[in-house]
Amino acid sequence: MNHQAIFKSFSQLTDIPELEWHYLKSKIKWHSVRKGDLLVQAGEVSDRIYFCHSGVFRMFYLKEDGDEFNKSFVQEGQFFTSYSSVISSIPSYFAIQALENAVVASFTYKVLLQLYERHHCWEVVGRKLIEQLYIKKETRERQLLLHSAEERYHLFLEEFPGLEDRITQYHIASYLGISPVSLSRIRGQLSCKSLI
Amino acid sequence: MNHQAIFKSFSQLTDIPELEWHYLKSKIKWHSVRKGDLLVQAGEVSDRIYFCHSGVFRMFYLKEDGDEFNKSFVQEGQFFTSYSSVISSIPSYFAIQALENAVVASFTYKVLLQLYERHHCWEVVGRKLIEQLYIKKETRERQLLLHSAEERYHLFLEEFPGLEDRITQYHIASYLGISPVSLSRIRGQLSCKSLI
Repeated sequence: MNHQAIFKSFSQLTDIPELEWHYLKSKIKWHSVRKGDLLVQAGEVSDRIYFCHSGVFRMFYLKEDGDEFNKSFVQEGQFFTSYSSVISSIPSYFAIQALENAVVASFTYKVLLQLYERHHCWEVVGRKLIEQLYIKKETRERQLLLHSAEERYHLFLEEFPGLEDRITQYHIASYLGISPVSLSRIRGQLSCKSLI
Repeated sequence: MNHQAIFKSFSQLTDIPELEWHYLKSKIKWHSVRKGDLLVQAGEVSDRIYFCHSGVFRMFYLKEDGDEFNKSFVQEGQFFTSYSSVISSIPSYFAIQALENAVVASFTYKVLLQLYERHHCWEVVGRKLIEQLYIKKETRERQLLLHSAEERYHLFLEEFPGLEDRITQYHIASYLGISPVSLSRIRGQLSCKSLI
């Protein structure tokens, strides 16, 4: 498997000595995930960090009444996991599901802790990755608190370029916190505006 | 001023060599903040990390129509800042206001970057602090997406013990995303239940 995309993502954050990279590479496992399969189940303790090599994933909450809320999406080139579950060893509050056939790389949290001990560069990588996750989460909070459904739709298009054509309207609506009918209305209004 | 509480918070995360602690201590500034004053204004680029020595703060969004949303509260012993603003040098999306007369310690982000360069221990501190912030943010997202107003009120009481008696109902309602009237109804129902 081609590890280059992973190395590129890490080395954008800080310099990774060759020896360190070889160590991590020896610990990476590759998985094929079929469309619809769950990579992480809600209620299960997750212990792996994933990198999306190809495909699309959704992270979603399932309410007791069966309603789903998509909390986020993952596309190629991104690290992802149920972070709280991994670092606190608690059951994941949400599930991660492939929305396309996908290929992911992964390594365990135990390996990540070993990396932190081995070399300073991994602490930098760990801190910067979690900073990026934090900023995303703050953005999401702001969207939920402050923005209208139409504004949230525009922000979705900006944040996940190209994703609109890869996933169903149901999943976009579930991310925006609106019904598919409301989403259809918003898209209809936008089409009309673009024709004027 | 007494730096012990800050040292205790850091050293719970990892061992801090004495030399490193003395360096940081020389960079810390203390501020008195009056009730109602803004420590960080929305739209302003923030460059300091704060530690709440005494008092209570709220972080809040202000909508164009004048509506406010309290995103979080800070009590004694906690680090806080407008993190996205600090690390990305962008205007803060929210303001931070003292809800009681308060005393805070602070140091600049520039100092934090120096610390990261100086000693491995600060990278550990930085990573673990941001991990804690991330978990809080994920918890908040879950509350907003999944829980009823009554459940969110219970979670508020758990997350901020003692805070209910220090801030107004208006601020609690604004955190829960409900009107003060709805909060009053929830509290009334709870009082009735506890009498039965």
